[in-house]
Amino acid sequence: MKLASFEYDGRPCWGVLEGDEVRLVCSASAARDRTLGQVLREGDLERVLDDARGASVVAVGEILFLPPVTDAEKIICIGLNYADHVREMNRPMPEKPVVFTRFNDSLVGGGAPLVAPRASDQFDYEGELAVVIGKGGRNIAPEDAMQHVLGYTMMNDGSMRDYQRHTHQFGPGKNFPRSGSLGPAIVTADETGPLGNRRISTRVNGETVQQSSLDQLVFDVAALIAYCSEWTQLNAGDVIATGTPGGVGDGREPKLFLKHGDVVEVEVDGLGVLSNPVVGER
Amino acid sequence: MKLASFEYDGRPCWGVLEGDEVRLVCSASAARDRTLGQVLREGDLERVLDDARGASVVAVGEILFLPPVTDAEKIICIGLNYADHVREMNRPMPEKPVVFTRFNDSLVGGGAPLVAPRASDQFDYEGELAVVIGKGGRNIAPEDAMQHVLGYTMMNDGSMRDYQRHTHQFGPGKNFPRSGSLGPAIVTADETGPLGNRRISTRVNGETVQQSSLDQLVFDVAALIAYCSEWTQLNAGDVIATGTPGGVGDGREPKLFLKHGDVVEVEVDGLGVLSNPVVGER
Repeated sequence: MKLASFEYDGRPCWGVLEGDEVRLVCSASAARDRTLGQVLREGDLERVLDDARGASVVAVGEILFLPPVTDAEKIICIGLNYADHVREMNRPMPEKPVVFTRFNDSLVGGGAPLVAPRASDQFDYEGELAVVIGKGGRNIAPEDAMQHVLGYTMMNDGSMRDYQRHTHQFGPGKNFPRSGSLGPAIVTADETGPLGNRRISTRVNGETVQQSSLDQLVFDVAALIAYCSEWTQLNAGDVIATGTPGGVGDGREPKLFLKHGDVVEVEVDGLGVLSNPVVGER
Repeated sequence: MKLASFEYDGRPCWGVLEGDEVRLVCSASAARDRTLGQVLREGDLERVLDDARGASVVAVGEILFLPPVTDAEKIICIGLNYADHVREMNRPMPEKPVVFTRFNDSLVGGGAPLVAPRASDQFDYEGELAVVIGKGGRNIAPEDAMQHVLGYTMMNDGSMRDYQRHTHQFGPGKNFPRSGSLGPAIVTADETGPLGNRRISTRVNGETVQQSSLDQLVFDVAALIAYCSEWTQLNAGDVIATGTPGGVGDGREPKLFLKHGDVVEVEVDGLGVLSNPVVGER
């Protein structure tokens, strides 16, 4: 199953992607004006989907994607989680996951424009696998962690490298409004099965700039869920972005930063393509 | 005016402190089940307070404080913002504000127990001045910044020093559930006037462990608001904690970490006392 949030007819909604169509689950009475995030947190997804079996269906072309979860309580991002990216950023190999956070308003959905801010000329892409939590928990053991996964999507963890390096803390570089993206849809784990060595790749204007496989993660999905749940409560709808492979613009010679008119695509095989144009801030 | 959120009669509420009493603003019809944070974000505080002039009043002893804003969209914390604390942590003097974030569930209100987690024996206090945003904005000039302040309160930015040092990013050490506190109330800026060189102090079991004055901040409130608004949208109800002075437990010889039975108090002259007992995690 593929779950997405989107605007339809000028209003926020969410639903299920079915080929080239999308079922407007938000319009089902059981959804009661709740976002997908709220329904997940209230443990009510199954009942709402059941109630929405007769809901209207519209063409995907009629919707504008939002981040699949628009109101995550926690967006936890992992840095430096592929060995080649650690090297290109001149960082030591981490012994624990490197954690920072993004605010919801730093992310747009699939197809929506990323905003290259006036304040920086070092707007970089980072293609990532993102995990959406389906069942909350604390102190989750690695061997139980996969039971807490609702599904997977992609993140472009867009980063202003100058702001990221203002100090040793990454936050300011990672939170410019609409500087990253999430989506287009959550592909549920029952549909994907184990991700194994699926390919992850990022393209800028059609040219592949990052390519790796998910078995190259230093800390895998289960390890990340276990670690994060040591120090925070994970809730349904929370997002963990698992880090980016080598090939970021800042690590290239010459450097490759994003500018108005560029198009960035992040793809994990079988999870769709997260494609976003870049527009300059007005 | 002093604004607080709290539990009363088993339910969340918010209101205005008036001496030893508190007016239950949440019960006014104009409040319509909204939190203080929601009312602030909707720019509706003045109207709701006006409508609540006849609301019930109860003794402060009958309420349990929550963080004054229970649902901040952004809790931005500043590290290493007093010169003596930079030295005791063996860090270089920052050229820009050092930024990390806390999740709402990492904070309790005044009087509520802080939880010393089993996972760490390095639970440290950090007494801080916290600013609550009253009017949102982006790219706010320093000279305009104070117009965006609703008021001030205190934060105990409780930190697990081992988790804070797992990597170079501070987040895991700063987000254990109920490991910090905020409150007890927001004292509005029209009541405080400029904070000047007011004293900030932290006491553990009655002994003063941190003491400084607010004019020792490396980056002052206006500078912090301006900087943060460069890279994120500030919204009403957001919190900026301005960093802690020297004297943290980790910088002492011998080190002084918090344990079950301790009481930590953070005080800024004129803003009240944020007092929390420490309990061991069950």
